[in-house]
Amino acid sequence: MGTALLTDLYELTMAQSYREHGKTGTAVFSLFTRSLPPERNFLVAAGLETLITKLEQFRFTADDIAYLGTLGIFSRDFLTWLEQFRFSGTICAVPEGTVLFANEPILQIEGPLPEAQVLETLALNCIHFETLVASKAARISAVGRGKSIVDFGFRRSHTTEAGIAAARAAWIAGFDGTSNLEAGKRYGIPVVGTMAHSYVMLFDSEDAAFRAYQSSFPDRAICLIDTYDTLACTDTIIRLAWEGVPVPGVRLDSGDIGMLARDVRERLDAADLAGIRIFVSSNVDEYSIDRWLSSNIPIDSFGVGTHFITSSDAPFLDMVYKLVEYEGTPRFKTSPGKTTFPYRRQIVRHYREGILAYDEVVRTGKDLVPGLLEPVLTDGTIVRPLPSPDAIKERCSREIASLPSPFRSLEKQHYDVRILP
Amino acid sequence: MGTALLTDLYELTMAQSYREHGKTGTAVFSLFTRSLPPERNFLVAAGLETLITKLEQFRFTADDIAYLGTLGIFSRDFLTWLEQFRFSGTICAVPEGTVLFANEPILQIEGPLPEAQVLETLALNCIHFETLVASKAARISAVGRGKSIVDFGFRRSHTTEAGIAAARAAWIAGFDGTSNLEAGKRYGIPVVGTMAHSYVMLFDSEDAAFRAYQSSFPDRAICLIDTYDTLACTDTIIRLAWEGVPVPGVRLDSGDIGMLARDVRERLDAADLAGIRIFVSSNVDEYSIDRWLSSNIPIDSFGVGTHFITSSDAPFLDMVYKLVEYEGTPRFKTSPGKTTFPYRRQIVRHYREGILAYDEVVRTGKDLVPGLLEPVLTDGTIVRPLPSPDAIKERCSREIASLPSPFRSLEKQHYDVRILP
Repeated sequence: MGTALLTDLYELTMAQSYREHGKTGTAVFSLFTRSLPPERNFLVAAGLETLITKLEQFRFTADDIAYLGTLGIFSRDFLTWLEQFRFSGTICAVPEGTVLFANEPILQIEGPLPEAQVLETLALNCIHFETLVASKAARISAVGRGKSIVDFGFRRSHTTEAGIAAARAAWIAGFDGTSNLEAGKRYGIPVVGTMAHSYVMLFDSEDAAFRAYQSSFPDRAICLIDTYDTLACTDTIIRLAWEGVPVPGVRLDSGDIGMLARDVRERLDAADLAGIRIFVSSNVDEYSIDRWLSSNIPIDSFGVGTHFITSSDAPFLDMVYKLVEYEGTPRFKTSPGKTTFPYRRQIVRHYREGILAYDEVVRTGKDLVPGLLEPVLTDGTIVRPLPSPDAIKERCSREIASLPSPFRSLEKQHYDVRILP
Repeated sequence: MGTALLTDLYELTMAQSYREHGKTGTAVFSLFTRSLPPERNFLVAAGLETLITKLEQFRFTADDIAYLGTLGIFSRDFLTWLEQFRFSGTICAVPEGTVLFANEPILQIEGPLPEAQVLETLALNCIHFETLVASKAARISAVGRGKSIVDFGFRRSHTTEAGIAAARAAWIAGFDGTSNLEAGKRYGIPVVGTMAHSYVMLFDSEDAAFRAYQSSFPDRAICLIDTYDTLACTDTIIRLAWEGVPVPGVRLDSGDIGMLARDVRERLDAADLAGIRIFVSSNVDEYSIDRWLSSNIPIDSFGVGTHFITSSDAPFLDMVYKLVEYEGTPRFKTSPGKTTFPYRRQIVRHYREGILAYDEVVRTGKDLVPGLLEPVLTDGTIVRPLPSPDAIKERCSREIASLPSPFRSLEKQHYDVRILP
């Protein structure tokens, strides 16, 4: 299976034209975000593993070539070149899990111009989406005050591939688990789940449903208590618990969560059941979590779905792939609002007592000065094994801890990024 | 390759518990959207082909079973059942390309309860995303007044799989092409593209860049004219055209598009170049298209990217999969704001002079009364070949033409859907 048709037509028409006009010198492209959405104070770099994995299979199959031939656009010579296409260049990247800001390159791709051009769409696609959801997950985690937060979004992700990638991004960025089994298997993420309304509706009573679930999974019965009447159901839970049926937690999925969580907690505590945890999964995002926890609503754990997995308040980033150098000379455009910064760059981060102070985006030669960007692929070959999701998660946790604390709030902050001339 | 781990953990824990408690009778689940986003007047059903394709591979591989075994949750008996899992039930669905509204089932899945439960996540994932983007594309097309509209979103789709599925959904729902080569190959969608800023920046002048592109692709040089100064570049285009270099069109990608398009058109017309078309690709969505076309801005063609492919103004639908019948008896829940309607249903559509008047969602037995829902899978086997994307596109075009015209505008409308008791 080749991945090389995962691109836009114009990458190939430009590549053919470059070759026809002798534009095959070394080009450097930079992949960065022009500005952050108003709803984000920082980004978390992600998607590199997906990109590298797809690049390893980046070849045009016989089928692909036959299809391209039918378009009547490409020359025989160019199709032959595509047949033999292997990316022979160099990629430098900021490691996954690193905190980044606007105008900082996540990736720099260097290689013969037609080759580097052809990677544009795939590079953007992989880095954009995973950085988007990792950044959203980090923002959600940051307001969670250490409470458990898990990914329940698989049904609303934009395809199953997106659900798997998002579960990984969320794990990296601070979530504690996912409901997504494929992601659990692939990345070793703890998998979690409760029960659906359909389960409760299948039995003659909520009492019967909870007993049945508990008999199947003795220690795992997080009981969904909002199918009919949440407070009446809380009393059912209390009766069960007093009978000795172990109930580790209850889940709220509708209604006025703040009020219900307080009432449920009060009833449980009054019944001496302080150990039963309250799990919430209705319409959860960083705004509701922050509101609930700021008002001391007694919630122990959050299942975050749709709003996380679609990054609903900011479903895209203004991320671009721009030519910055060709044969050693700088390139930039001056379109209004879309000015770019020329030259190969490095990000040099400055700290004050372990906390981020400001970044400089400095010019650098082929041998990078030390900084956030590191070689990943040299002459088409991977430099070193990519880190595991757990290692990336650790790195990300340190990164987020090093942010000035207002950046972890929902109030808009602007980080000092200095683009040196 | 199996697709059965593309699910949430709780589908499997519930299935095990159902089996342990003899709940293996016939269940009917309905997949529908509870309410439309304020930004949508109708939906376009899509995603069925993806779902059916994935269901054909819906089995747990030896690897999957081994992974599930490591979780320490499932019984040996249940894992054996999963090993042999094949969906043996029945699926009825509204054909792709059909216009739908809130509370109308897109899909009804009927089968032994544990089997039908296990399909929930995958069914929602496939139908939700493609319906979401098909509906967005139809809304964009509907305000396009017959102008050409193409999908340029691949770089911002939520994974490559989403980009391919969205390109297909857009084609079905009225777009004229896509930049996405894999989608072009797979679905026979016309592929389109222009040139990037990097191309223009690679040459010593815009003049040289356009000549180079034109020499590579004599009839395809849609020249990108905003890299430096749009109006100065328009004069370059005029000189080229007067010299006899064929320029079929120019593309605007930044700045005040309305003003620039007028100025560029004026200059081109004054130079007797009325044949050169204006193509716009900056920040395009249904709102900007409607605004430009309502003000008679002379644009011939739109490239729609990010806002389409992420459905940015409404990046998800409130789509659910609900148990409506078990062993012939109705099931429903009464959670506030989340009440469901019991029974297997059919959608009966009523017209007035060929235009949609109202829909009835009626109860029906195992043999459906005639209506929008049709059998797709019976006893686990596909009933008839699925229609081609082109056939679906035709159907969708007729469907959208049958909407009362205000539903094709951006003003909020409410369609009359009657849920019969």
